Amino acid sequence: MKHLRHPGIWKMLTVTMCMVLLGCLQAHKLQGHVSIILLGATGDLAKKYLWQGLFQLYLDEAGKGHSFSFHGAALMAPKQGQELMAKAQESLSCPKDMAPGDCAELKDQFLRLSQYHQLKTIEDYQALSRDIEAQVQHEGLREAGRIFYFSVPSFTYTDIARNINSSCRPGPGAWLRVVLEKPFGHDHLSAEQLATELGSFFQEEEMYRIDHYLGKQAVAQILSFRDQNRQALEGIWNRHHVERVEIIMKETVDAAGRTGFYEEYGVIRDILQNHLTEILTLVAMELPHNVSDSTAVLQQKLQAFQALRVLQRGSAVVGQYQAYSEQVRTEQQKPDGFRSLTPTFAGILVHVDSLRWEGVPFILMSGKAMDERVGYVRILFKNRAYCAQNEKHWDPVQSQCLPRQIIFYIGHGELGSPAMLVSRSLFKPSLSPQSWKEMEARPGLRLFGRPLSDYYAYSPVQEQEAYSILLSHIFHCQKGSFITTENLLASWVFWTPLLDSLAHEVPRLYPGGAENGHLLDFEFSGGQLSFSQPQPEQLVPGPGTTPMPSDFQVLGAKFRESPLVAAWPEELISKLANDIEATAVRAVRRFGQFHLALSGGSSPIALFQQLVMGHYGFPWAHTHVWLVDERCVPLSDPESNFQGLQAHLLQHVRVPYYNIHPMPVHLHQRLCAEEDQGAQVYAREISALVANSSFDLVLLGMGTDGHTASLFPQSPTGLDGEQLVVLTRSPSRPHHRMSLSLPLINRARKVAVLVMGRMKREITLLVSRVGHEPKKWPISGVLPSSGQLVWYMDYEAFLG
Amino acid sequence: MKHLRHPGIWKMLTVTMCMVLLGCLQAHKLQGHVSIILLGATGDLAKKYLWQGLFQLYLDEAGKGHSFSFHGAALMAPKQGQELMAKAQESLSCPKDMAPGDCAELKDQFLRLSQYHQLKTIEDYQALSRDIEAQVQHEGLREAGRIFYFSVPSFTYTDIARNINSSCRPGPGAWLRVVLEKPFGHDHLSAEQLATELGSFFQEEEMYRIDHYLGKQAVAQILSFRDQNRQALEGIWNRHHVERVEIIMKETVDAAGRTGFYEEYGVIRDILQNHLTEILTLVAMELPHNVSDSTAVLQQKLQAFQALRVLQRGSAVVGQYQAYSEQVRTEQQKPDGFRSLTPTFAGILVHVDSLRWEGVPFILMSGKAMDERVGYVRILFKNRAYCAQNEKHWDPVQSQCLPRQIIFYIGHGELGSPAMLVSRSLFKPSLSPQSWKEMEARPGLRLFGRPLSDYYAYSPVQEQEAYSILLSHIFHCQKGSFITTENLLASWVFWTPLLDSLAHEVPRLYPGGAENGHLLDFEFSGGQLSFSQPQPEQLVPGPGTTPMPSDFQVLGAKFRESPLVAAWPEELISKLANDIEATAVRAVRRFGQFHLALSGGSSPIALFQQLVMGHYGFPWAHTHVWLVDERCVPLSDPESNFQGLQAHLLQHVRVPYYNIHPMPVHLHQRLCAEEDQGAQVYAREISALVANSSFDLVLLGMGTDGHTASLFPQSPTGLDGEQLVVLTRSPSRPHHRMSLSLPLINRARKVAVLVMGRMKREITLLVSRVGHEPKKWPISGVLPSSGQLVWYMDYEAFLG
Repeated sequence: MKHLRHPGIWKMLTVTMCMVLLGCLQAHKLQGHVSIILLGATGDLAKKYLWQGLFQLYLDEAGKGHSFSFHGAALMAPKQGQELMAKAQESLSCPKDMAPGDCAELKDQFLRLSQYHQLKTIEDYQALSRDIEAQVQHEGLREAGRIFYFSVPSFTYTDIARNINSSCRPGPGAWLRVVLEKPFGHDHLSAEQLATELGSFFQEEEMYRIDHYLGKQAVAQILSFRDQNRQALEGIWNRHHVERVEIIMKETVDAAGRTGFYEEYGVIRDILQNHLTEILTLVAMELPHNVSDSTAVLQQKLQAFQALRVLQRGSAVVGQYQAYSEQVRTEQQKPDGFRSLTPTFAGILVHVDSLRWEGVPFILMSGKAMDERVGYVRILFKNRAYCAQNEKHWDPVQSQCLPRQIIFYIGHGELGSPAMLVSRSLFKPSLSPQSWKEMEARPGLRLFGRPLSDYYAYSPVQEQEAYSILLSHIFHCQKGSFITTENLLASWVFWTPLLDSLAHEVPRLYPGGAENGHLLDFEFSGGQLSFSQPQPEQLVPGPGTTPMPSDFQVLGAKFRESPLVAAWPEELISKLANDIEATAVRAVRRFGQFHLALSGGSSPIALFQQLVMGHYGFPWAHTHVWLVDERCVPLSDPESNFQGLQAHLLQHVRVPYYNIHPMPVHLHQRLCAEEDQGAQVYAREISALVANSSFDLVLLGMGTDGHTASLFPQSPTGLDGEQLVVLTRSPSRPHHRMSLSLPLINRARKVAVLVMGRMKREITLLVSRVGHEPKKWPISGVLPSSGQLVWYMDYEAFLG
Repeated sequence: MKHLRHPGIWKMLTVTMCMVLLGCLQAHKLQGHVSIILLGATGDLAKKYLWQGLFQLYLDEAGKGHSFSFHGAALMAPKQGQELMAKAQESLSCPKDMAPGDCAELKDQFLRLSQYHQLKTIEDYQALSRDIEAQVQHEGLREAGRIFYFSVPSFTYTDIARNINSSCRPGPGAWLRVVLEKPFGHDHLSAEQLATELGSFFQEEEMYRIDHYLGKQAVAQILSFRDQNRQALEGIWNRHHVERVEIIMKETVDAAGRTGFYEEYGVIRDILQNHLTEILTLVAMELPHNVSDSTAVLQQKLQAFQALRVLQRGSAVVGQYQAYSEQVRTEQQKPDGFRSLTPTFAGILVHVDSLRWEGVPFILMSGKAMDERVGYVRILFKNRAYCAQNEKHWDPVQSQCLPRQIIFYIGHGELGSPAMLVSRSLFKPSLSPQSWKEMEARPGLRLFGRPLSDYYAYSPVQEQEAYSILLSHIFHCQKGSFITTENLLASWVFWTPLLDSLAHEVPRLYPGGAENGHLLDFEFSGGQLSFSQPQPEQLVPGPGTTPMPSDFQVLGAKFRESPLVAAWPEELISKLANDIEATAVRAVRRFGQFHLALSGGSSPIALFQQLVMGHYGFPWAHTHVWLVDERCVPLSDPESNFQGLQAHLLQHVRVPYYNIHPMPVHLHQRLCAEEDQGAQVYAREISALVANSSFDLVLLGMGTDGHTASLFPQSPTGLDGEQLVVLTRSPSRPHHRMSLSLPLINRARKVAVLVMGRMKREITLLVSRVGHEPKKWPISGVLPSSGQLVWYMDYEAFLG
């Protein structure tokens, strides 16, 4: 039987007996015995970090009122396990400032408090529980709690959790904490499954999901830095002042020897989904009043997750170092022709859709086989100054024209240690002097464009391992540095769609190391990321020869006896946008205003984006925007055509509020009720504002059933008659619609019909042959009485 | 009698006779005689630039079909004038590559074609005209046209113009051109007067207003550079890619010896209103299809002028070098205590409100007694890239992370000559090889943050004087490089309000030269400019001690038995904004939405700005915005309360379209017609959306007559009764109003009344004493039945 309390610190106990210990639970405030069970006690992580972390915890806490026992566990039989565990514990070290004699004594004590258990069957767990209870009783102590550390593969989590829950929980009044290591799933679905399973055995507050980056000193520093420098940061930690945020983790090593794991995960799941996203939320979240309040911190983190804008395929660039596929072939016995699509490099552009951060690019990047090993978070501030002097005379403290930045330097790189850097022209930061000290000068060293001397630069007073820090937080029940189920799932909600859309993407190959040159540089424009340099052909064989837009000529042809513009999509949209702008400019010149009626649906989105990005001369201030048709849902419903228009066009240009004319489908809080006369209201508005009710341009689409606007085959309304605006029914949901009528559409000066995509081939062919039969094919009734009709078709729709 | 045609180039003439000469008028295409009359022929400008310019014109053009005579004119008697003129012509020089013998011969010819005239009386002008006619006739030529160059003080313009018009116009079929030198007025009014006077004597097309900056090679290059590099610039010459534009003219000299002129003009009128603004329009204007089409160029320039956002007092920082006032005292015999307010340094932030440039800062700066003499236009592009390599390895051609810029280097500075610089990472520019050649390497020279070797750098093949270029343009009738009356007045419309608002501003004093240090650096934030460093006290004695907001405590007091918040304006607005946000956050948490009713007028503008800039957590997406009252004008009318709300609040935050509720004052294209029932419509909308018609917050103001909302004393409607929304009459225009009623206001959960400014002192005092008398003082009827009323008053209104 081992000693549970080491006599050497007995005296100290009497002192700490009088102190009120901090902790999250009442139970924790009472001294007692804590058992820590390390599952996977003989594994790599245990050997490298965890035993040392536990020893550190013991050094820090053993004198403060609790007693401890440490239980290594694995599947191995006791004797072999004990031996391997002893090996894993061999290299325990004490802080540098401790006398060697004291160190040896404390290490000896720690080892005497440690024992190995084979944990395989439920009986093993029962036996462990009995052992602990017996120990506690024998020593005359009360049990405070048990910590189970899961340093085991995640597929074993459920079984272990079941066993702990059923057979190894401490008795009433004592707490249970389980510590989980990633991966926490492979995507949203698997993460949710795992979370649900674990949730059936443990309470949320019992689980501590580790992201060891949150224990790295520079990362753990982010919130307290923001807190301690609230006043200096208050006015500048926002979109008005921050130019960009970079969150970077570069490795020089590659995946050799780990390709089994890596093939399944890749760089995004391995680094970005967890480490870099966690850091991002620490930077982006609103700062709670009290940063020690874990609940408030986690709540704000969750809100930051929820404010992340959905990633598109274009939000990412991915790469793979050239030797990777060969490594996989060798290590995984793949056939010769095998080519992996797993990215080993990724750059991601993230936007945070909050008022604080709207428009600020957050750049996340990680890669293997890079030119250097380094991790950092860099907040670069906008240069809003003009410096009247010649740059030769700029003073790094006074000049506001030199780059101003705050860098949380996670480690490695040219500094070789964690650090905090703040440009001297920003402010002198407050940092806890117990933790951070000013760095010594290192002449000649430049970081992020400036000499080190341009920064207030701090390094840790004492470098600490992330695991030691996190074990201490677990012991003290500080949940702020761990990943709650909600936050975990929010992160997967964010990443999963991108991962899905990248699944079949061919990553850009890169040679690795300094050879990468500028091959992996990337840039963003309009929310899209792309590599700065074109794909070098010698590295990747092309995916066959797809015809390019420039291979074709826009055809000057006719369709249903009206002009036809046919082209590849990009060129088609560009041509249509140009034509609309020209029409708008002409109308404004002649009449002072331009009345544009737009259809809903997805085809016009690319058009809207083109108009937003490429048409600076568009007379938006004199443009009236009308709807061609609308679904009978509230305007704020995601299904509403108006919503799409607002999101993709109106938010980005300056159309005056009173020139925007949504259809009144929601009068008197009812949807398209006949008695509310919404159609008549809209018709009157058109008559009042649009001369002769003749729109300058109506943009239509065409459905696979030949419908246009919301005029469907056999519609009893809208295909003829006097009514300008009508209520109609659609065969698909939502059934109720409001639509301009054919007679109104045909009064327009110009009608453009946009038809895109392979799905439209059949109807295009059919419509090319039929006459004027609007009852069967409403689109065939589009024929402006004195205006012009133009068809815009992409080759997919047209070359059926 | 002088020879009008020099025989040495007779052979060339026979060649050019067959060429079609370029020119804007039919008359110009016919060869004939051109007389150039230089008014002020003995003055400094003539001596320094104009005679040389005319000589150059003669060298360039004399062989191409026209004959010339040059008439110097001044007020002096013929003999003295002739002598002085000969002196002014002494230093004429030929191009470097001309043989000395040829040069001497041509110079001799030129001098023989030149004669002096005293032009004082109308008879002098008549005599000049007769002389020219006689000469032309004698030589058997036809007269092509006359150019009058006004190198005289502008107060003499009108008299001279009258004389030319009445007595010195050429006969039918020949053209007249008058060339005018600045200043063209002192402000908008004087410029308009001068333009009107000149316009009564000359046609617009006869006038050539010179801005000699437009003849400087790097400036004259701007449009052709944009034209020749259309493809490379198309995607990047816009707000998405341009970070900022700097237009800079720094001088080392001061105003000593010229303080008489300078006191009247100052740096803004001397440099910014003309030179720098002209350059700005060349950068900002839309590029016409054909840049040689002067009409199109001038039209686009005018549009660029019109797109300039109105300058505020806060758009400028001004300075004055320390020795200036003393120089004025000495030169202008001012008393000892005299202190000039004339700025000798100005930094201006200009915004161009076009879709192309929205949000891009254009920084204009000029100053005397600076650390260096240099002029340039710098277009800095945004850094949208992340470079995956360590910066040590960045290649200036390939890396997109180094600064990318285009610089039109006007002259002087470290390069010492005009130049064109384009970052190598941008593109290799197309430049006319006749005009521009690649510069030689200059190791060690850094410009704009990068070594010269990082740029494609070009200098002129031959340096040309601006006046030579402009005289050639005048001769060839290329009006694009001159200032039309419309453009001139547009520029004054832009500058005059700022000049007025700066008239009594004390400029920051600066020592001059390199001593300026960072004293003149400035920065912008929220559209406002300010010096980066605080005013150093030793340079300028303070303007007396004004109490600062921090000198007072917000009073915790009562007003009309409701809580009163009293503070200095800035603090008051900040407190109110915080209170509104807190109310909004609470409402959204409890009810999912926040219903806010806002008043019009000017007091809330500062509040709106505060909400926009400082409140990132404001739940705008869940806020409904209602109007407390509205004027019966179209929503798009500048008088509309809604317009103010849109401009200062709604454009800057993201309130969904359907959460914005303007008052329906303009139904059926009529303004507040009883029969349109707008008040009832609004009341129904409130009843439908706002639970119990009880707004979460109503923001009111108080008029000097005790009115609130649009409820005026003695109003027959809205002060009591059942109606929620009413039509009312205001004693001031526009008389017709729509307003929430007192009973509706009093249903609110919270009512805030904001009262600011000295004008409100009396009514505040009065209202503090009266009881519930809404008929007399509607504000006294504000008393929420179950909600809370809070008064927000600044000390000016409150401490009457």
